[in-house]
Amino acid sequence: MAGRNGGGAPTLESVARRAGVSRATAGRVLSGSTTVGPQAREAVLRAAAELRYVTNRAARSLMTRRSDSIAFVVAESEDRFFADPYFSQVLHGAHAVVAQHDMQLVFTVVSRDDTERQRFERFALGGHLDGAILVSLHGDDPLPRRLQDAGVPVVLSGRPFAHESRTPLTYVDADNVGGAMAAVRLLAQQGRRRIATITGPLDMAASVDRVDGFRAELAAHDVVDAGSADGDFSIVGGRRAMLDLLAADPAIDGVFAANDLMAAGALQAARELGRRVPEDLAVVGFDDSAIAASAQPALTTVRQPMVEMGRTLATLLLDQITHGGEPQAPVILPTEIVRRDSA
Amino acid sequence: MAGRNGGGAPTLESVARRAGVSRATAGRVLSGSTTVGPQAREAVLRAAAELRYVTNRAARSLMTRRSDSIAFVVAESEDRFFADPYFSQVLHGAHAVVAQHDMQLVFTVVSRDDTERQRFERFALGGHLDGAILVSLHGDDPLPRRLQDAGVPVVLSGRPFAHESRTPLTYVDADNVGGAMAAVRLLAQQGRRRIATITGPLDMAASVDRVDGFRAELAAHDVVDAGSADGDFSIVGGRRAMLDLLAADPAIDGVFAANDLMAAGALQAARELGRRVPEDLAVVGFDDSAIAASAQPALTTVRQPMVEMGRTLATLLLDQITHGGEPQAPVILPTEIVRRDSA
Repeated sequence: MAGRNGGGAPTLESVARRAGVSRATAGRVLSGSTTVGPQAREAVLRAAAELRYVTNRAARSLMTRRSDSIAFVVAESEDRFFADPYFSQVLHGAHAVVAQHDMQLVFTVVSRDDTERQRFERFALGGHLDGAILVSLHGDDPLPRRLQDAGVPVVLSGRPFAHESRTPLTYVDADNVGGAMAAVRLLAQQGRRRIATITGPLDMAASVDRVDGFRAELAAHDVVDAGSADGDFSIVGGRRAMLDLLAADPAIDGVFAANDLMAAGALQAARELGRRVPEDLAVVGFDDSAIAASAQPALTTVRQPMVEMGRTLATLLLDQITHGGEPQAPVILPTEIVRRDSA
Repeated sequence: MAGRNGGGAPTLESVARRAGVSRATAGRVLSGSTTVGPQAREAVLRAAAELRYVTNRAARSLMTRRSDSIAFVVAESEDRFFADPYFSQVLHGAHAVVAQHDMQLVFTVVSRDDTERQRFERFALGGHLDGAILVSLHGDDPLPRRLQDAGVPVVLSGRPFAHESRTPLTYVDADNVGGAMAAVRLLAQQGRRRIATITGPLDMAASVDRVDGFRAELAAHDVVDAGSADGDFSIVGGRRAMLDLLAADPAIDGVFAANDLMAAGALQAARELGRRVPEDLAVVGFDDSAIAASAQPALTTVRQPMVEMGRTLATLLLDQITHGGEPQAPVILPTEIVRRDSA
């Protein structure tokens, strides 16, 4: 081996050297180009065969379908992918673990559109991915089940929306119910008496669980449920929801927003209406993303460990890939209140 | 064909149906799992062969190495990828074109680190990508040349840093020199007499070209060159550079920042020092990204057509992939001044 190849796996360089052609020519032949003359072509293919270059790679890909790559798939528009620091944090954690295993992480957005789902499924089933981390799924998205059924390991960020009796999907989640309860408890302990919530999209499990926690904790205090409005997990949606809530009930003195972007939108709305935060209106967010510390006033929020969630997602997925198939038990990571100035 | 398969290409469902097994079992067999019993395994492989399911896919991938996917590769840290709206805009344009051609776009960050480059190269040469759009390259990065030599079509956002005599690389760029000249001309026409520039990293062609335009236009006016400082294309870098420039020359009355993030940092610095913008200090940015309109005061800037650049990159790359090999002539898109409040 060492005598043939200078040690290690055969490379494009070693094939080119053996064939007596340039690296470019060898590359063209091996990538299927037909622009190389028959003699050089023959020499490259023979050298590749002798060095087991093509054989290794093709055999590996056909027999095991290993591509040494993992996809991080966000079921949102590109705009939301870039606008919400949540995604970059989870991605950051996943990327670190995947890189440690010397595998390639690619990211993509696959909107809730059958064409996009089918295209991604084709790519995944084509042997180009060893597994997928699926983030921000809405409703009963068929994508994870279809990939898993076809033998592509998947892990989900957040519990599946629908409870099913079939083989479970592996997921990592934060304690959304507990986090929302802690937010309401803080507001009640601060003497707030009319508390509202700005929710995420209600076709997402995280949104539903945070509303459930909000309602459960409210019931334990002498506090008025001042209603809820969907803010779509965005700044503009949070502003709009806060304006609507205050229009319906001007006496609201506390609000729990189900992410920091919507909490920042609620701060905007309060500023526009001349309400002081936290004196007139206390605001608690969720995530503890970068926007929380930089908001004016800085946001009190429920921290979920986003980087740790990404690391856990990647670790579970690599484990599935290495040890084969069976889905694992879910992992639920704790949340905690981070006190700043808005409540 | 229609009688055998209900029309269209064979699917996992049609293989499973013919073999008399579940979709999950067929998927497991075809993805190389060994957990399925010999009888079912045999039935699936026979059905797949009869329907030309495996044959089609494996043959296609081995013969042509087409994966129907393209990578959008940013040679930066994840943090910068998410922090600078420039990337999301270019990506947006590229994604639209790639999706129109029913191909999958995946994104990834490949830092200037040999391990990361080699890992990505392995993925690309493994037949998992039909081509790559490379964005934000620094210095004489070997990645584009290595991919191209190995038969993977590439296009670059921004001209290559080093001028080379070898086969040219295909690139799309903005008129960086002309844009910087227009910025300085505007400042001079507004009566500014001591003009400085905040540059991007000087191992990038875009940064060098914008400095060249700055110097060339200054020479045509009766204006003092008040120096330059590297702001690393970031908000914090722009703030730091502006503070340094004003410390060295407190009489600076105009500054051209080579992107909008650094211009926003310059606005922060001016605010901290009690300088009014534009009265005491006029600021011109570059990009016309989302931050320009939302800055306080809103930024006057040099607009480059980022979405159009993304579209052009994808169009050139798809053309290379379809028609084979040869690099194309570069495309340079125009820039224009957008007047707002900062100059």
